[in-house]
Amino acid sequence: MVFHLQQLKKFTISVFEKIGFSKSDADLCASLLLRADLRGIDSHGIARLRGYFNLFKAGRLNPNPKFSWHSKFPTLATLDADETVGFLSGKVAMEKCIEMATTTGVGMVAVKNSNHFGIAGQYALMAAEKNMIGMAFTNASPLVAPTHALDKMLGTNPIAIAIPALNSKPFLVDMATTTAANGKLEILQRKNGIAPEGWIQKKDGSISNDPNELKSGGALRPLGSFPELGSHKGYALGAAVDILSGVLSGANFGPWVPPFVSFLPIAENLVGQGIGHFFIAFRIDGFMEENEFLSRMEVWMETFRKAKSTEGGQVLIPGDPEWEMEVERAANGIPLLPAVIEDLNSLALELNLAPFHQ
Amino acid sequence: MVFHLQQLKKFTISVFEKIGFSKSDADLCASLLLRADLRGIDSHGIARLRGYFNLFKAGRLNPNPKFSWHSKFPTLATLDADETVGFLSGKVAMEKCIEMATTTGVGMVAVKNSNHFGIAGQYALMAAEKNMIGMAFTNASPLVAPTHALDKMLGTNPIAIAIPALNSKPFLVDMATTTAANGKLEILQRKNGIAPEGWIQKKDGSISNDPNELKSGGALRPLGSFPELGSHKGYALGAAVDILSGVLSGANFGPWVPPFVSFLPIAENLVGQGIGHFFIAFRIDGFMEENEFLSRMEVWMETFRKAKSTEGGQVLIPGDPEWEMEVERAANGIPLLPAVIEDLNSLALELNLAPFHQ
Repeated sequence: MVFHLQQLKKFTISVFEKIGFSKSDADLCASLLLRADLRGIDSHGIARLRGYFNLFKAGRLNPNPKFSWHSKFPTLATLDADETVGFLSGKVAMEKCIEMATTTGVGMVAVKNSNHFGIAGQYALMAAEKNMIGMAFTNASPLVAPTHALDKMLGTNPIAIAIPALNSKPFLVDMATTTAANGKLEILQRKNGIAPEGWIQKKDGSISNDPNELKSGGALRPLGSFPELGSHKGYALGAAVDILSGVLSGANFGPWVPPFVSFLPIAENLVGQGIGHFFIAFRIDGFMEENEFLSRMEVWMETFRKAKSTEGGQVLIPGDPEWEMEVERAANGIPLLPAVIEDLNSLALELNLAPFHQ
Repeated sequence: MVFHLQQLKKFTISVFEKIGFSKSDADLCASLLLRADLRGIDSHGIARLRGYFNLFKAGRLNPNPKFSWHSKFPTLATLDADETVGFLSGKVAMEKCIEMATTTGVGMVAVKNSNHFGIAGQYALMAAEKNMIGMAFTNASPLVAPTHALDKMLGTNPIAIAIPALNSKPFLVDMATTTAANGKLEILQRKNGIAPEGWIQKKDGSISNDPNELKSGGALRPLGSFPELGSHKGYALGAAVDILSGVLSGANFGPWVPPFVSFLPIAENLVGQGIGHFFIAFRIDGFMEENEFLSRMEVWMETFRKAKSTEGGQVLIPGDPEWEMEVERAANGIPLLPAVIEDLNSLALELNLAPFHQ
């Protein structure tokens, strides 16, 4: 069933307001959450709305945060997000990066004591919209076993990099440092699908095709999937994201990162506060004339789009499929699975809201 | 056969001096080149010494560069490396990053008109030695086909990230954004080995096991190896490295990056000058007390080292194998393959130097 963005937004705002967010904060959270649905990253959108509510019920999400900053240099800062949702802290942190970069050339912000922020790409894009280069990172619930490990030590720890061009939509990397994002597993679970070999391992470290394997002690595998195909590289990237987001900010890191799902216990002897993010924005004209760079980006994109491809294949510019989806879904609506609709209806019931859909 | 570092260094210095580098520059180039051999990255070390000489013979490597800088902000700069070798420009560029970061918190330098700089990790480590976080990137000769592509559009474009700890050696990511670095293929070629499925594709895009496939129109594959295992992520990372290093600096990018091997032709209608690098250094105490961070890094490392592992496997900290190798080879010497020794002897003959080894 297909829903118009405005319909989803109205409902989402009402849920965030019920949690206790101000009208304007609820509006912002809804926009940032639903950007995932709009861009076709269904796993990170409204399907997780109940998850955010459950975090609130568990006393782990503060709708009325007081942000506090630590800053010693005009380019670097740490934000204590006071246990609020990552949408709010992520937006404020990237705004601060852009503000610092406007004056000094570059801004970097580490965030601690935060919660999940939806899709990383949209924070990086905030910089690209100002013709800056933007990057966003976050750590997340431990689901990933490093190469040769059995334990789940890392989250899917995404890397987002947004780079503007003259006429085209920005180049956008927005990727989990695992072979498959957890959201892709969630979708397979709902469909009773089979995961390709290399996404998941069993409790004993052997290969699994079962998208439910993580519930029996299994783990996701880092990008690269197998030692001989370079899974230590995916592990190393996920580790670097964990360190920038968690160790450097004062948040939790590694196996201590609090789980998104509220029914899983929080680790003992926490090493920090909440989850952590890391953001960077920097000016292009510190390196070359802005317009020259933007034109060079057009040449880059055109060259790669035109690369000779395999039969039936197509060489894509990172971000292009999501830009196309955003146009399509803004016009034609956002499809939701029956399980998601049912979940939203039960949430409405619990919150004394009108049913999401009847 | 095993050689002591000093022996390799003496010979390497004499070659760089013959090319026309000053005594101190030749010494620096030798140290940075041989750091690869010392750290066990045999493909990037003395085995490539002839490659640098051949670039000089082809008129593509300037031993007496005049560096020129473009800078508009106290945090960002572009360096025109005047066609010299990347060892010199890389070192100067990272020193500039550290200098800018010392005052402002962060420094970023883009380099154009450069040549290959050996292993990326050592430039990132320069920052870590100052208790900063360092990153280094470079583009390189096009050898890699993006996901679904047949054309070689990208280099193995490495990412290096160095992060200091209190007592342990720094955490160090230093990885090609391909499944396997080109150097690993070179080693297989010398050994007449077989490459694992996923490293290489044939001219028609199908899988190959032949490490010589690139000579018949084949290509390396991005990290992830296959579309269903996320090869678009390796492609996207390699692309981002190309843009930061090449598009932003004014160097060549994508298929225009000049090949390292001088017998391959340079592309027509170049889009910039030479190859490009990108460097970042930033202070830790802009986010939290330096000692607190360094202690947290020790906890991070200890936690990951102790993760439960598969039988016979071991969870490693990125960089640890190379740190161990560096100690071992500094003490016991550096093994060279007969083909490399022979090549160095022929180089000595050509340059009227005493034989490398008799």
